[in-house]
Amino acid sequence: MTETVVVREVGPRDGLQIAKSIMPTEIKQRWIAALADAGLREIEVGSFVPPKLVPQMADTAAIVRSSIALPGVHVTALVPNLRGAQDAYAAGAHAVSIPVSVSEGHSRANTNRTPFEQVAEVGRIVAWIRGQERHVYVEAGCATAFGCSIDGLIPTAAVVRVAEGLAAAGVDEVGLADTVGYGHPDQIHEVVRAVRAAIGPKLGKLHLHDTMGLGLANVLAGLEEGIRTFDSALAGLGGCPFAPGALGNIVTEDLVFMLESMGYSTGIDLEKLVVARAVLREGLPNEPMYGQLARAGIPKTFRPAA
Amino acid sequence: MTETVVVREVGPRDGLQIAKSIMPTEIKQRWIAALADAGLREIEVGSFVPPKLVPQMADTAAIVRSSIALPGVHVTALVPNLRGAQDAYAAGAHAVSIPVSVSEGHSRANTNRTPFEQVAEVGRIVAWIRGQERHVYVEAGCATAFGCSIDGLIPTAAVVRVAEGLAAAGVDEVGLADTVGYGHPDQIHEVVRAVRAAIGPKLGKLHLHDTMGLGLANVLAGLEEGIRTFDSALAGLGGCPFAPGALGNIVTEDLVFMLESMGYSTGIDLEKLVVARAVLREGLPNEPMYGQLARAGIPKTFRPAA
Repeated sequence: MTETVVVREVGPRDGLQIAKSIMPTEIKQRWIAALADAGLREIEVGSFVPPKLVPQMADTAAIVRSSIALPGVHVTALVPNLRGAQDAYAAGAHAVSIPVSVSEGHSRANTNRTPFEQVAEVGRIVAWIRGQERHVYVEAGCATAFGCSIDGLIPTAAVVRVAEGLAAAGVDEVGLADTVGYGHPDQIHEVVRAVRAAIGPKLGKLHLHDTMGLGLANVLAGLEEGIRTFDSALAGLGGCPFAPGALGNIVTEDLVFMLESMGYSTGIDLEKLVVARAVLREGLPNEPMYGQLARAGIPKTFRPAA
Repeated sequence: MTETVVVREVGPRDGLQIAKSIMPTEIKQRWIAALADAGLREIEVGSFVPPKLVPQMADTAAIVRSSIALPGVHVTALVPNLRGAQDAYAAGAHAVSIPVSVSEGHSRANTNRTPFEQVAEVGRIVAWIRGQERHVYVEAGCATAFGCSIDGLIPTAAVVRVAEGLAAAGVDEVGLADTVGYGHPDQIHEVVRAVRAAIGPKLGKLHLHDTMGLGLANVLAGLEEGIRTFDSALAGLGGCPFAPGALGNIVTEDLVFMLESMGYSTGIDLEKLVVARAVLREGLPNEPMYGQLARAGIPKTFRPAA
């Protein structure tokens, strides 16, 4: 039996939010369609945040509406608050993802709230969403769970307390995010174990950045801990506008290559990811793109897992 | 007790051999001195190969002579054959490293011999070196042990047979090299276990390339198997002129950052590695340089292990 690992593409959200230029809506839609065609079944397509702060996300409602029309694609939108969640619901998103920083400094910079205030906001979002007719999956991510470029080291106990608060707020899933990419494999082991001991199977995905080059090593540690969903961005774009120093997400192409090489089935076609890169390049002609698979090509020895 | 991991810098050999330009001898010497000053105690400084084939290595005798004058530095030279070993001995190298490809295709391209013929050459080198007055450490590396861009997949059993041959030839240490960078973590586990079962503690270092971005994940797998010496190259230079498609070695700076973050002491100073990068840049002004630590800077949360 081949084991399955879910790769959630966050490029259209995390990848674009710090891009210097704004990708036209029509190309964004073709890019997301190309990602879906490559086999990505979970895509975070944008965020409902003030366009004044993050102009790259101004068309998120339109992007959600076109994305939910793609067959078999589960569409997530990031929402920092209740208003964003209501917008996401109205647009038809299948899931909302709410960032909750463990670090006080990043929490204030990112959402203008303390971690406690943001956990309370998650409670309000859950209550509102559960009162609607249509089911929407609610995920909250513990941001800066492995270090913060503003506040520095983050104690594991602080991550556990936020995760417990989120579980108590009634979310379907709690994720762990290395927002600035300072985490290392031993820390992944430690934090995942501690959070799982506290909230059990509500612990879901890992969201990792490759700032220090440790992204895939951290994935390996996550796999060893039984994590089976990982966020990544095509071409390794990404970074938080409110987390200084953070570089891009782990690279979708390289992550899929590693997982499939190790016998984990992702359902994703590497050659079609290369096609999706071309659409991304068309939409952001002047942005640096990363990734080793794109540099090296797919080795002739590569065999997909399934 | 902090555990120690040895990082052997191979940039002056593996890193320069495919560079488009030739680093002047004087800058090479300053670069190696800067590496030593950063705490690197094992350096592969060059190779004794025909200058017609690899002109970047034409000054290796001079480089060995100046490197052995650096206090506390253990100087290795790569030698493909007996004549190279004799040259390395004459120059005063502390150790020789002999590549032996597991893949027939790469073996012929790299040394113009079959793997069997090259194991026989290792036997001759060991016999000659053991007959000299001065002790020289003899290491042989199983090249293309995790895949080959010429011959494709490499069976683990083939690696074991070559490693057994090298142990029987009397070398002090057998290393495993992912020459083209196609290996993945599960394969590292499998091959390391199989070779160790065959030759025991003669199994030494791992030499990894980051072609597919899996370099540090592969290091993590190696650490889990008890490997405590890794080759790497400053700025991720490297590649074999006779192994098409291979990209650079794992990045020394990023490797040291990961190891120290995980509590393994390397004795290497990250800030001084950044200084050594500047000398490398001076010597190769037009070569691409890689590495995430150099892009992101050293996080303020970083604390060395020791």
